[in-house]
Amino acid sequence: MHFTSERRLDDGVVEREFTLGDIPGILWTPASASTSAPVPLILLGHPPLGLGRMYPRLVARARQAAADGFSAATIELPGSGDRPRLPATDRARADLRRAMEAGESVGDEIIDALVLPLVDQAVPEWRSALDALLALPGIGGPVGYSGGIISIGVRLAVVEPRVAAAVLFAGSLVPRVMFEEARRVTIPLHVLLQWDDEGNDRQASLDLFDAFGSDEKSLHANMGGHTGVPRYAGDAAAEFFTRHLR
Amino acid sequence: MHFTSERRLDDGVVEREFTLGDIPGILWTPASASTSAPVPLILLGHPPLGLGRMYPRLVARARQAAADGFSAATIELPGSGDRPRLPATDRARADLRRAMEAGESVGDEIIDALVLPLVDQAVPEWRSALDALLALPGIGGPVGYSGGIISIGVRLAVVEPRVAAAVLFAGSLVPRVMFEEARRVTIPLHVLLQWDDEGNDRQASLDLFDAFGSDEKSLHANMGGHTGVPRYAGDAAAEFFTRHLR
Repeated sequence: MHFTSERRLDDGVVEREFTLGDIPGILWTPASASTSAPVPLILLGHPPLGLGRMYPRLVARARQAAADGFSAATIELPGSGDRPRLPATDRARADLRRAMEAGESVGDEIIDALVLPLVDQAVPEWRSALDALLALPGIGGPVGYSGGIISIGVRLAVVEPRVAAAVLFAGSLVPRVMFEEARRVTIPLHVLLQWDDEGNDRQASLDLFDAFGSDEKSLHANMGGHTGVPRYAGDAAAEFFTRHLR
Repeated sequence: MHFTSERRLDDGVVEREFTLGDIPGILWTPASASTSAPVPLILLGHPPLGLGRMYPRLVARARQAAADGFSAATIELPGSGDRPRLPATDRARADLRRAMEAGESVGDEIIDALVLPLVDQAVPEWRSALDALLALPGIGGPVGYSGGIISIGVRLAVVEPRVAAAVLFAGSLVPRVMFEEARRVTIPLHVLLQWDDEGNDRQASLDLFDAFGSDEKSLHANMGGHTGVPRYAGDAAAEFFTRHLR
């Protein structure tokens, strides 16, 4: 892990860009982090649109995390931003667009081709990032995972014991095999669902919530479309992390 | 409205029992209420088990409301507690029990007979209680309605303009006609659903949530069975009222 830049935001949060091999990432630590005991870490998931485009939303989430006493970090997804494209994923995305524009139902094979290779490649990268991040002074456990592609969150929750709680965003297509993985999730979950998100399969989201094996799981459904998560829903997600990571 | 008793709880909350005609009720006001500006009021709905049996849960909710700066009040439901039985409702309840014990699906006519006469009688009573309560010094608007039989909450939200926000508990059978009424609800709603509540029709609860016409509506689904609403879910409902009644 190499830090490539460091700046202090107006609220005192320290933002550091880094590379982990050839994967770019960003780490945010609260103003108090260097002088106090190690703080918990929240991994900020995001859709595969590139860190540059996602930056405004990511930094807002990181500031909230810092205000709650957490550090936050994210890395670029495979095939996004400046990373090499994933031709198979690009083809699946084109197939998806074609099917949706033709008004056809989106077949399992398209969803699998779109999501599964991304999950298979991304999850080990997030785990490597976790190794590097938790080795830094001032950053400790427990670790939360928040948002982004829900299948990445599900896989991480199954395979990565350092992730102690997750806020998942039910807003992307879910391969059938992930419903099986969901049954093996046991950590506390806080699932956000935008009820009238037209790009989302609401019933699949409800089925996935039902499938999670966790004793503590909450579904928070709100209005406002895919990107219109109300402020109070964000606050509730922050309270969930405060309850489980502090 | 006649007050029949008054006592001060250990946290300073003043609890007064009253009768409104022949309907018993309870009013709780925060310790500060007599010396400050009028406080908002939360109507505490409850299942038809009688105020006596429901008292421990009601007083806990009233203490929470008072801690948040609200007064709270409830009245006995028709046919419950010491009020005269409703033979038709009792018959419908027996039919319901018979159908459930026989493993049969519960027909619309049983649900309608069980719920609709209760709603038709209770809602005007709650409105009369509101007239009397809002005439008291120290109690002002806006008014919230919380919990109990969801169809009563829906009807109140439609017909009673003084109810500004409602926390509804998706835990009882819903007559088909209430889905139409739900479309006419426009106030902010916070709907609690116990996901694994075996006495509840989850799909009907989701359909009802979908039907509500409110621009702001949130569904909070949690684990824990019918009476096992987690503490943090109660906290979130309290925050909803603080957001809308203060």
